[in-house]
Amino acid sequence: MSELKEISSNKIFNGYQKVFSHQSKELSCEMNFAIFLPADSAEKKLPVLYYLSGLTCNELNCVQKSGFQRYAAEKGLIVVCPDTSPRNIEGLDTKDFSWDFGYGAAFYVDSTTDAYKKNFRMYSYITSELIDVINSNFNVIPNKQSIFGHSMGGHGALIAALKTGLYKSVSAFAPISNPINCPWGEKCFTGYLGDNRESWKEYDATELVAKYNGPPLELFIDQGSEDQFLKENQLLPNNLIEAAKKAQVPFIYKLRDGYDHSYFFIATFIGEHIDYHAKHLL
Amino acid sequence: MSELKEISSNKIFNGYQKVFSHQSKELSCEMNFAIFLPADSAEKKLPVLYYLSGLTCNELNCVQKSGFQRYAAEKGLIVVCPDTSPRNIEGLDTKDFSWDFGYGAAFYVDSTTDAYKKNFRMYSYITSELIDVINSNFNVIPNKQSIFGHSMGGHGALIAALKTGLYKSVSAFAPISNPINCPWGEKCFTGYLGDNRESWKEYDATELVAKYNGPPLELFIDQGSEDQFLKENQLLPNNLIEAAKKAQVPFIYKLRDGYDHSYFFIATFIGEHIDYHAKHLL
Repeated sequence: MSELKEISSNKIFNGYQKVFSHQSKELSCEMNFAIFLPADSAEKKLPVLYYLSGLTCNELNCVQKSGFQRYAAEKGLIVVCPDTSPRNIEGLDTKDFSWDFGYGAAFYVDSTTDAYKKNFRMYSYITSELIDVINSNFNVIPNKQSIFGHSMGGHGALIAALKTGLYKSVSAFAPISNPINCPWGEKCFTGYLGDNRESWKEYDATELVAKYNGPPLELFIDQGSEDQFLKENQLLPNNLIEAAKKAQVPFIYKLRDGYDHSYFFIATFIGEHIDYHAKHLL
Repeated sequence: MSELKEISSNKIFNGYQKVFSHQSKELSCEMNFAIFLPADSAEKKLPVLYYLSGLTCNELNCVQKSGFQRYAAEKGLIVVCPDTSPRNIEGLDTKDFSWDFGYGAAFYVDSTTDAYKKNFRMYSYITSELIDVINSNFNVIPNKQSIFGHSMGGHGALIAALKTGLYKSVSAFAPISNPINCPWGEKCFTGYLGDNRESWKEYDATELVAKYNGPPLELFIDQGSEDQFLKENQLLPNNLIEAAKKAQVPFIYKLRDGYDHSYFFIATFIGEHIDYHAKHLL
């Protein structure tokens, strides 16, 4: 396993917020991730909560804007925030890249198309390589992990949990719940997975929950009522909820009056999410 | 008074974080400010806490990175975050501008030099015009106001409180405490106030505290021990403290072990500062 390089380290709420880079095998590039280490992580193995960010984001958005460190410090949870895509791939044709495709928009799938299959393997990176990196380099309790995220990353958290059974709990802020049926998902899945829409179902939370047969898992979905992307039918939480109901997969759905898609929404409720994950991890 | 234009509005912690722009008379340009309105500000007049940001910042840094809204919502305080300088002045010669001089670096003084005296009047903007704008447009208790800030803005808060007596309390994160004796201050004061160093004393917190004779005021200074700018002698808090001791102006000085100059430091202790101001305002 390649070495970690420490990029930054800042004391916050008596712990440390750090950023590291490492050479990723899955993505064939240098990747950054952020990690919050509570004060007692030096003496004590702690559980890990993974946070996946949304379109255009990198490892820092949640670190700088959500205020999660206060709650993670209180509960004693390590929180890991990876980047949202491979970056700066030499020789890659980026002419089709835009804010919602390519860098910052890898959608947490393993690409199968010739153009992207070498590097755009965020699903394997998140659910396997990154877990190994964290378990090998930090004082964590292996297999005591949960996952959450926002928008594209909320969906990433849901598919990671539904496909692997590796996580004790999962929650999502305003997830893109049924990407095979919304413009953002259709664009990315076409690019990363090709034109065979049947193959897309393996990375769609609504499809996956319908056939879920892993360990007991509850889906915690948080949604602002004034989210513009909810209104534009990019998020489609009702499709996910209907599928969960039919499949008898338990879920919590909180519709928050007046909140939008921003980190102001996330900052308001991330304490509740960390409480939720702490109950499953501690 | 010129009209306010709403630039953005996001629900957070049951209140609203908004940004407005207005035409400033003091600065002769369009200015943005951010304002947090707690949930009950619609029915009830509330006190106002002003936050002044540091070098390179604008009205959004504290809004996005400090997490203050949670605490302000709990206490029921309106929080106003102005920009740190005039912006985009047509016809202004900006050849001497850099990250620590000019836009984003106006140091909360009223300039007296020919080049800048028309626009760089942040002292009057903060202590007079902006207060009028807030009092006229929002549901506030006039004269129930406090002020705090960070670095250049921590110093701005100190001089605003010491020079005007308008604020019920003042606190500062890592303030540039004695700018006439540090490189950042010398550069900006030369540019905005000219070569006569005697004239600089009117805008130096350490000088002002030495001759303070306003209403009872305590200075609350918060400082990280690992702040690189403390080590580089840009901040000089001990000069301020010695002057306050001599002048018998009460102060609280908290040296926080291991914290640096960043918003991670501010995020950790801003709840304590808001508690402090709430005690003076409520």
